Amino acid sequence: MTKKELSGQILKKKSFLCIGLDSDIEKIPKHLLKYDDPVFEFNRQIIDATQDLCIAYKPNTAFYECRGKSGWESLEKTIGHLPENIFSIADAKRGDIGNTSALYAKTFFTHMDCDAVTVNPLMGEDSVKPFLTYDNKWAILLGLTSNKSAEDFQLSMTAMNPLEKESEEMRQIPLFEKIISVSSHWGTDENMMYVIGATKAEQIERVRKIIPEHFLLVPGIGAQGGDLLSVCRHGMNSSYGLIINVSRSILYVSDKTDFADQARSAAKAFQKQMQEIIEKSSGQ
Amino acid sequence: MTKKELSGQILKKKSFLCIGLDSDIEKIPKHLLKYDDPVFEFNRQIIDATQDLCIAYKPNTAFYECRGKSGWESLEKTIGHLPENIFSIADAKRGDIGNTSALYAKTFFTHMDCDAVTVNPLMGEDSVKPFLTYDNKWAILLGLTSNKSAEDFQLSMTAMNPLEKESEEMRQIPLFEKIISVSSHWGTDENMMYVIGATKAEQIERVRKIIPEHFLLVPGIGAQGGDLLSVCRHGMNSSYGLIINVSRSILYVSDKTDFADQARSAAKAFQKQMQEIIEKSSGQ
Repeated sequence: MTKKELSGQILKKKSFLCIGLDSDIEKIPKHLLKYDDPVFEFNRQIIDATQDLCIAYKPNTAFYECRGKSGWESLEKTIGHLPENIFSIADAKRGDIGNTSALYAKTFFTHMDCDAVTVNPLMGEDSVKPFLTYDNKWAILLGLTSNKSAEDFQLSMTAMNPLEKESEEMRQIPLFEKIISVSSHWGTDENMMYVIGATKAEQIERVRKIIPEHFLLVPGIGAQGGDLLSVCRHGMNSSYGLIINVSRSILYVSDKTDFADQARSAAKAFQKQMQEIIEKSSGQ
Repeated sequence: MTKKELSGQILKKKSFLCIGLDSDIEKIPKHLLKYDDPVFEFNRQIIDATQDLCIAYKPNTAFYECRGKSGWESLEKTIGHLPENIFSIADAKRGDIGNTSALYAKTFFTHMDCDAVTVNPLMGEDSVKPFLTYDNKWAILLGLTSNKSAEDFQLSMTAMNPLEKESEEMRQIPLFEKIISVSSHWGTDENMMYVIGATKAEQIERVRKIIPEHFLLVPGIGAQGGDLLSVCRHGMNSSYGLIINVSRSILYVSDKTDFADQARSAAKAFQKQMQEIIEKSSGQ
């Protein structure tokens, strides 16, 4: 999917909601366990009930891998079930030396035909570049993650340029800003996005100064939607530029047979807030 | 496997060789394609031909994932075929928020029963800790990787302590040294190791000052074994403390029916060098 098509979907659906398919066989409603593939059946019903309210789905590979090859089968079937015009994100956080990253890119872009895959940029340019060689496919790099320990390294003050002469004043920025700044030149805003946790809304403004045009994938918005307004205020741009992910607050509202209807209601509440924000931003 | 058992295997086999099972269906001998699972058949013959010469095998998950669920089946069968007393490393470079990392740990430690998994530490302590809760299992954290772009971020000069007062002189160290120094307190040398690329032999001495007792997993040794002596001189400790990985220089010596014999010869050459180093180090 191109950037223009993605923005078009947001405008059409009045939504920039992504539903995170963190589908845990121990948390899905018990009545689904009678199916051959309970996790796929759960995903299928969630997708069918919510696809008009969101613009993306994001299965996290860990929830599938932990069941081995049968988990991978659920994942492949889930990706296969996604409707046209939905942006599909494999939340895999991969990254390895070049020829190995190329195989991960092949896994998610060719074998599964996802639109995007999340990538851990710690190993640098040659570990990321193989994800940028596919037309209309996206690498979503970890910028600032939403977990507490993100501060261990991502917030470490880091020299912007290791080759700077000692006599010059060394410019120090948090590592995540260096990662974003340096890596943004490896591709374009047409094939790269960044994960920026919503728990750090105040950081989004700084990120926007470095990459005004890139899309941001924002996890960490809770059931309350407390941070949504603040994230949008700092993070939205002329292409909308935001994909807001919600997982558990939509998937697990009910563990009864009405789970898909309840998921729809929860998704609808997020979509309504987004519609208000979109309409306000365009002056309607 | 415990640290003591691992050192015992090294002493017994006079080898600290790990064979990287980067088994690419496009590179394995063509005559294997007639088997139901050519990649597993390739691995089976490699393992059967080399298991007395090495102390570990390390399949990289990318080579399996790129074939989807059938690739995962090859991976699971390969792990299942490894003999007792062999240290098995899933080279997966995973890492995610805590509850998700816990699922990755479950994948490789429970579902597959590997001894170790490689972990990307960028997301910090809560992303690594779930890998440290299993008895006699290991997290192998990326320290300094062997690819060229490792310098993009891993060598960035970074403030050792973000809370240090501005008036104090800020201590600057390369990011990979900070990652090793900080993370080494999350576990012990009984459940953590570090990846340190052999292409940076001069760095191994610095690493040993920070973590004298931990095992290091060292990729990047070529067919010539040129760096092996230098790596051992700087990196070996009283428990040996090194696992040297070789992949392509052993797997792909021949693409004929003699490939396993040829792999054995290549592995034997590495093992012989290691035997000399071990015997010299113990004064024999």
